[in-house]
Amino acid sequence: MKIGCPKEIKVHEYRVGLVPAGVRELVADGHQVFVQSQAGVGIGIENDAYVAAGATILPDARAVFDSAEMVVKVKEPQSVECAMLRQGQVLFTYLHLAADAAQAQGLVKSGCTAIAYETVAARDGSLPLLTPMSEVAGRMSIQVGATALQKAYGGFGVLLGGVPGVQPARVVILGGGVAGTNAAQMAVGMGADVTIVDKSLKRLRELDAQFGNTIRTAYSTMETIERLVIQADLVIGAVLVTGAAAPKLVTREMVARMEKGGRSGRR
Amino acid sequence: MKIGCPKEIKVHEYRVGLVPAGVRELVADGHQVFVQSQAGVGIGIENDAYVAAGATILPDARAVFDSAEMVVKVKEPQSVECAMLRQGQVLFTYLHLAADAAQAQGLVKSGCTAIAYETVAARDGSLPLLTPMSEVAGRMSIQVGATALQKAYGGFGVLLGGVPGVQPARVVILGGGVAGTNAAQMAVGMGADVTIVDKSLKRLRELDAQFGNTIRTAYSTMETIERLVIQADLVIGAVLVTGAAAPKLVTREMVARMEKGGRSGRR
Amino acid sequence: MKIGCPKEIKVHEYRVGLVPAGVRELVADGHQVFVQSQAGVGIGIENDAYVAAGATILPDARAVFDSAEMVVKVKEPQSVECAMLRQGQVLFTYLHLAADAAQAQGLVKSGCTAIAYETVAARDGSLPLLTPMSEVAGRMSIQVGATALQKAYGGFGVLLGGVPGVQPARVVILGGGVAGTNAAQMAVGMGADVTIVDKSLKRLRELDAQFGNTIRTAYSTMETIERLVIQADLVIGAVLVTGAAAPKLVTREMVARMEKGGRSGRR
Amino acid sequence: MKIGCPKEIKVHEYRVGLVPAGVRELVADGHQVFVQSQAGVGIGIENDAYVAAGATILPDARAVFDSAEMVVKVKEPQSVECAMLRQGQVLFTYLHLAADAAQAQGLVKSGCTAIAYETVAARDGSLPLLTPMSEVAGRMSIQVGATALQKAYGGFGVLLGGVPGVQPARVVILGGGVAGTNAAQMAVGMGADVTIVDKSLKRLRELDAQFGNTIRTAYSTMETIERLVIQADLVIGAVLVTGAAAPKLVTREMVARMEKGGRSGRR
Amino acid sequence: MKIGCPKEIKVHEYRVGLVPAGVRELVADGHQVFVQSQAGVGIGIENDAYVAAGATILPDARAVFDSAEMVVKVKEPQSVECAMLRQGQVLFTYLHLAADAAQAQGLVKSGCTAIAYETVAARDGSLPLLTPMSEVAGRMSIQVGATALQKAYGGFGVLLGGVPGVQPARVVILGGGVAGTNAAQMAVGMGADVTIVDKSLKRLRELDAQFGNTIRTAYSTMETIERLVIQADLVIGAVLVTGAAAPKLVTREMVARMEKGGRSGRR
Amino acid sequence: MKIGCPKEIKVHEYRVGLVPAGVRELVADGHQVFVQSQAGVGIGIENDAYVAAGATILPDARAVFDSAEMVVKVKEPQSVECAMLRQGQVLFTYLHLAADAAQAQGLVKSGCTAIAYETVAARDGSLPLLTPMSEVAGRMSIQVGATALQKAYGGFGVLLGGVPGVQPARVVILGGGVAGTNAAQMAVGMGADVTIVDKSLKRLRELDAQFGNTIRTAYSTMETIERLVIQADLVIGAVLVTGAAAPKLVTREMVARMEKGGRSGRR
Repeated sequence: MKIGCPKEIKVHEYRVGLVPAGVRELVADGHQVFVQSQAGVGIGIENDAYVAAGATILPDARAVFDSAEMVVKVKEPQSVECAMLRQGQVLFTYLHLAADAAQAQGLVKSGCTAIAYETVAARDGSLPLLTPMSEVAGRMSIQVGATALQKAYGGFGVLLGGVPGVQPARVVILGGGVAGTNAAQMAVGMGADVTIVDKSLKRLRELDAQFGNTIRTAYSTMETIERLVIQADLVIGAVLVTGAAAPKLVTREMVARMEKGGRSGRR
Repeated sequence: MKIGCPKEIKVHEYRVGLVPAGVRELVADGHQVFVQSQAGVGIGIENDAYVAAGATILPDARAVFDSAEMVVKVKEPQSVECAMLRQGQVLFTYLHLAADAAQAQGLVKSGCTAIAYETVAARDGSLPLLTPMSEVAGRMSIQVGATALQKAYGGFGVLLGGVPGVQPARVVILGGGVAGTNAAQMAVGMGADVTIVDKSLKRLRELDAQFGNTIRTAYSTMETIERLVIQADLVIGAVLVTGAAAPKLVTREMVARMEKGGRSGRR
Repeated sequence: MKIGCPKEIKVHEYRVGLVPAGVRELVADGHQVFVQSQAGVGIGIENDAYVAAGATILPDARAVFDSAEMVVKVKEPQSVECAMLRQGQVLFTYLHLAADAAQAQGLVKSGCTAIAYETVAARDGSLPLLTPMSEVAGRMSIQVGATALQKAYGGFGVLLGGVPGVQPARVVILGGGVAGTNAAQMAVGMGADVTIVDKSLKRLRELDAQFGNTIRTAYSTMETIERLVIQADLVIGAVLVTGAAAPKLVTREMVARMEKGGRSGRR
Repeated sequence: MKIGCPKEIKVHEYRVGLVPAGVRELVADGHQVFVQSQAGVGIGIENDAYVAAGATILPDARAVFDSAEMVVKVKEPQSVECAMLRQGQVLFTYLHLAADAAQAQGLVKSGCTAIAYETVAARDGSLPLLTPMSEVAGRMSIQVGATALQKAYGGFGVLLGGVPGVQPARVVILGGGVAGTNAAQMAVGMGADVTIVDKSLKRLRELDAQFGNTIRTAYSTMETIERLVIQADLVIGAVLVTGAAAPKLVTREMVARMEKGGRSGRR
Repeated sequence: MKIGCPKEIKVHEYRVGLVPAGVRELVADGHQVFVQSQAGVGIGIENDAYVAAGATILPDARAVFDSAEMVVKVKEPQSVECAMLRQGQVLFTYLHLAADAAQAQGLVKSGCTAIAYETVAARDGSLPLLTPMSEVAGRMSIQVGATALQKAYGGFGVLLGGVPGVQPARVVILGGGVAGTNAAQMAVGMGADVTIVDKSLKRLRELDAQFGNTIRTAYSTMETIERLVIQADLVIGAVLVTGAAAPKLVTREMVARMEKGGRSGRR
Repeated sequence: MKIGCPKEIKVHEYRVGLVPAGVRELVADGHQVFVQSQAGVGIGIENDAYVAAGATILPDARAVFDSAEMVVKVKEPQSVECAMLRQGQVLFTYLHLAADAAQAQGLVKSGCTAIAYETVAARDGSLPLLTPMSEVAGRMSIQVGATALQKAYGGFGVLLGGVPGVQPARVVILGGGVAGTNAAQMAVGMGADVTIVDKSLKRLRELDAQFGNTIRTAYSTMETIERLVIQADLVIGAVLVTGAAAPKLVTREMVARMEKGGRSGRR
C-alpha cells in the first residue's frame, strides 16, 4: 500500500504520524511510504532518518496526499487538509468529531474513509489507540497538578509529597481506569496522600492489590465524593466520558476561588 | 563461673532465664550451669533438653540459689527469692526497682550484686537488653490494639486494615523509637493508616526513608498531637519514659467513654 | 420502590442493612426509604443522619415491614421477622438456609421473594456480595490467630512476626482464594513465615507474582498438607466450601491438646 | 523572652517566621510572642489563629521590632528592617550574607546579634535548619524539571516517567546528599531512569541499599560525569557548595541551545 | 487404571515421571501404580518412599510397560522403549516429535496413544504442562547467563548486578511471556539493568505494573531490537516458537567473537 | 608524583591497577602516569584509551618500575616484580602477606614502602579498599552457588528460587557484614529462602529493617548454626576472618558426600 505522512499543521502540534522506526516496519512489510519534508523536525527527526528507514521524501503536503492510498496523521485534518483528501483514500488519525461539525462535513464531502484512532476497539472492548493517550494524560495530570499547587503558579504553595514531618498533599482521583491508575502511580511515587474513588469494587480490589497501602480506595457514592473532594488539595477527574479528552485537575485554590468569588484563604 | 537458673514464680510468668541454647554456649565457655527441675516447662522445654546442653538439674530453687555464683532470672526476685540471695552473689534479671521499695530493701539486705537488665547500657547509649522487650511490646501493641477495636472486645468494630473500598483504621504512634517503629511495622503491614509523631526531625527522616509513603510522619507539637489523637481510632504511646514499661494503647472507644463520663475499664 | 431497613435483632449483631450513604443513593435514584428508629445506633449512626440522607424514620420493625416493598437486612430473618414478611415482598439479606430448616419453612410460608446475598453471582461466576465477607474474614483470621497464639489466650506464646533474631510463627493458609489471599496479606504484613497451599498452579503463580518472596506457595497434595500443617504454628482453613462460613484457624497448641487426648475448647 | 514575628516584606515571599503551632509551644514554655497583624495571611493564616495560640497581635512591623528581644523571620532583613534592629536584640532568620555586603553592613551597624539559620550546625556537623530546605529543593527540582521537559515550557516533550513501551527520561543527579536523595526519591517515584553520582562510595552504598535497583549509582570521575551528562535528559546539580542555594537543573534542551548557539533539534 | 512409571534412560536425565506424593494421590483415587526399582534414585528417592505411598515396585522397565495401561515418563521414549509400547496403551510424556522422525515412526508402529505434555492446552489457550518448564527455563537462563559473563567461563568478567558505583550488566529479554517474565524476575533480583521487548503493548503494560521501574519495557520493532541488542551484555531469547525448546542466551562476548571472527575486545 | 601501572602477570589475573578514568583524575591533579603497553588488554582497554587520558605508554614492566615513584597494581608482586622494586619507592596493591613468607622477604629486601589495599582503614574502622571486594565476593557467591546446585555441576538439581508451587532452596548465610549482606541481596533477589546468622543483634535489626520479611535473621549460637546448616541447600560462609579471602560456599550435596565418606572435590 502507498502510505503518506504529512507534516502536522495544527497550532502547537509537534508530533508526527510516523517515526522512522514505524516507516522501517511498513517498508519491510512491502509498503511504500511517502513523508513530507521536515515532517518530523518538531521533535528533532531530520529527513535523513526517514530516508534511511526506506521512506521517500516529498516536498509538500499536496504531494503526500496525492501519492498516498492511506494518510497517517496525529490530529484531525484541518480544512486545508480535508480539501486534499479524495474518494477511496483512507485517513487514519484522531478525529474527535463529536464537537466539530465543520470537520465532519469536510470529511463526508471528501469521500474518504476516515478511521478515528479513538474509536478503534479491541475484541475485549478496550481501546488500544486511546490507552497510550490515557497513560500520558494520567501521568501528566499529576506533574501539571504539582506545578499548579506551587505558589508561583497561583496555588497554595503545597508541596505534593510533603517532606518528613510535614503532611503531603491530599490527592483524590475520581476513576480507577487507565488514566486514574497512571495518575495514582505518579502521585504515589511523589509521596502524596492518594485516594482513588471508583464505582467498581472489583477494580478497587485490583488497585488495592497493586498499590498495597500506599493508596486508599473508596467506593464511589455522592457522600464519599463530597467528603473527599472538600478535603483534597488536588482532584483528578479521570472518569472516561465518551468523546471527552484528558483528565481534569482541580486544586483547592481553584475551589476556594470559586467558593469565595475571588479571595483565597487556606490554613 | 557457677551459674544458676531457677524456675520463675511470679504469677503468669512462663519464661525462663536461660534456654538450652544459652546453656550450651555457657558450658562451651567453661562455666557450670545449674537449672531448677521443670524450669522451662512453661514454654515447653523439658529437663532433658537442658541436660543435653550440659546443665545439671537441681530439684528446687533453694538448691539452685545455693550452688550459683550468679543467678539468671527473668522477673524481679519475689520476697522468697530475695531471702535466698547472699553476700557476693550476682543476680542478673529485670528489676524495675523504682516503684518497688520492698524489693529494693530485700536486695540491699541480701548483700548480693544485682544487675538490672533494663539499665545495662552500650557505649552508644542504647539499652541492648531493653531493646528486645521494646520490639516485642511495639509489635504486640498493634495486635492487641486490633483486637481491642473488635466489637466483641468493646471496640467500635473497626477492622485495622479496612478492606478495598473501606477506609482502614487511623493509628497514631507517639514516639518513633524502638517500640514505635516496631508498632508502625505491624500497623503498616496490616494495612492501617499510620502516622508517627516524634520530637526529632532527624528520626522522622529516617522513618520516612524506611517506610516511604506507607506512613506519614508528623513533628510533635501540642497542636499536632491534639489534632491527630482526636481523629485516631487507635493511639499507641511509645515514648520512652525511664522506668515505665510497655507501650500504652488507647482506642477511640475508650476516649468516647471517657468523654461521656463513663469508665474506661480495659487496660 | 419502597425500601425498608429494620434494626437487626439477632444477638451480637450491631450492623445495619443500609448506611446513610446508601440511603442517599437510593433516594437520588427515586426510591423511598424507611428506616427503623435507632437501627444504626449499634455502630454509632443516629436517626438524624438517616433523615439528612432522605429516609423516613419509623418507630418499629412492624411499621418498616408494613411500608416496604423490599426489606434490606444483614442477618437471616428471625422467626418474629419471618412472621412480618408477606406475599410479593422482597427480602434481601444473608440467608445461609442450608442448615436452617425452620427459617426456610418460615420464608416459604411468608410467600415473599427472598434473595440471599451469598448466592448472588456475577457473570464471571464470582460472588460479589460474598467477597467483602471473605475479605473481612481472611483479614480477621490472622489477627484472631495472632491473639490465639498469645500465652494469655491459651497459646504457646509465639509472637506472629517474631523479632529480629527470633523466628516468626509459621502460618499455613489452605486455599489461595479471596479469604486466603487477604489472610496472607495480613500475615505477611505482620512478618510471619507464610505458606499458601492451593490446588491451582495458575493461582499459585498469580500469588507468586503478587507477593514475591515474602510468601512460599505449595501445590496441594496430601503429602504437602500433612508436612506443612504439622510444622505450622497457625493454620488458616480458607477453602471455599459452599454453604460454609468464615475461615477456620487452628493453632499448634490446639493440635498439641488434641494429640494429648485433651479437648481443644477454643473456637 | 519577648519574641517578635513581623510580616515578610521581600517580593514573592509568602511564608512567615512563626506559625500558630510554634507560637503555642513558645507560650507554653513561658515566652511572650508578638505577631504583626496579617503576618500569616500569605499562606492563609488569620490573626485569630495566632491569638488563639497565645500571641499578641501588633499593628505594624515597627511595633513588633520595638517589643521583641528576639525577632524571628524567614528571609534576610531588607534595609528598612535592618534600620529597626537594635543593640542587644537577637535576629533569627536566613541571612546568606556572602553575596550581600549591604545587608552585612546594615546588621553590623544595628548592633544586633544575628544568627543565620543556614549556619546553625548540630554536633555531628549536620545543618538541621538547612536540611528541610534541601529536602524541599530536592523534591521540587524534579517537578520543576518535569515541567521544563514539557514542549509547552520549551523542553523536548519528554515525559519524565515514559509510559509502558516508551523509554523514560534519563535523570542524572550530581550529589547524593539531602537534596540529591530527595530528588532521586521523586524521580524514581515518577518512573524516570535515575543515576546518582557521588564522590563517596560509602554514600553510594547507602543509596544502593535504600533504593535497590530502581536507581543506578556512579562513582564521580570526570569521565563518568561527562558520559552521563551528555546522555541525560535532565541533570540535577545537588552538590552542597557552601553559601550556594537550591539545586540547579539543566535539561537537554538547554544544553542543545548552548551547543548550537540557539536552535534545538532532538527527536 | 494401572499406571506405570519406568526409570528414565536418556543420557543426563535424572528426573522421574512420578514422585511419591503423586503416587499417593493416584492410589487414593483408586489407581494401581507400578514403579521400576530405583526409578527415583537420580534425585534421591528410594524405593521405600514409593512403597510407602502405595506403589508396587517392579524389577525392570519391561515389567512396568507390561503391567501398565498408562505409562508416565519425562522424556520422549527411546527406541528400546518404543519397542515395549503396545496397542491400546497410553503414553504420557514430553515428545517433541517435530524434529524426530524415528521416534514418530516408532510410536505409530507401536499402536499406542501418545499424549505429549507440551501440547496439552487449557481452555484459555495456555499450556499448563509447558508453563512450569518455561518458568524453570526462564529462571535458569539468568543464572546460566550470569555464569557465562564470568571471565573464567569465557565472558567479559561483568558481574550481573554490578556493585554500588559500578554499572550492572545490561540484560535484554526478547519476549515477555512466561519464560521472559521469569527471566526478568531473576535478573531484576540480581540487580541487572533489564529491558523487556515484546510485540504486545498490553503485555508491556502488565509487566510495567508488576515490575514498576525496576525494569524498562520496549515495544518490539527492528530498530528497537537492533539498538538494544548491540548495547546489551546479555540477551535472552524468550519468544515462544512452537516446537522450540528453552530460552537462548547470547553474551556480548559471543557477539564480539562472531563480529571479529575470533578476537574479543570490550571497553 | 610519578605513578606507574604495570601489566599484571599472575595467572588468570586480567584486571589492571588503573583504568583510563583513574589516569585522567591523577593527571588532572598534576601527577605523571606511566602505563605498560597492553596493560589493560585483558579487560578490553587499548593503549589509545590510556593515552587519551593523559598517560605515557612504556614498552615493558621494567620501564614502568624504573620511572615510577609509586607502583599501582592489583595482585601481590610476583618474585620478578619484587626484584624491580627499589628503596624509597611506594607499592600500592593487595598483598595478603600472612601466608606468603617469600613475598614478605622480597618486599623487605627491596626496601620499598608497600601499602596493602586490604589493610587501609578509615577512621570509623571500616576497610574502604576491601569493601568492594567483599561486595563482589558476596554477590558472586550466590551465582556460583546457584550453579553448584545444578545437576550438571554435581549438585542436587535444586533451582535456587524454586518456581511457584515448588519450594526454593534454603540458603544460610553465616555473617551479616558486607559480604553476607550482598550475598543476601542476590539470594533474595533470586527468590531463595534466606536466613542470615550473626552474633550482633544490632546488625540483625538493621538487616531486618533493610530486608523486611524477605529474609529471616537468626542469632548465632552453636545450636542455631547446627540446625540451620543441616537443613540448608546452600551455606555461605561470610564471616570476616582477618587475612582470609572470599566467602566460602557449601552445598547440601558436598555435605552429603562428606557424610558418606566420599571426597568433596569442588572448591
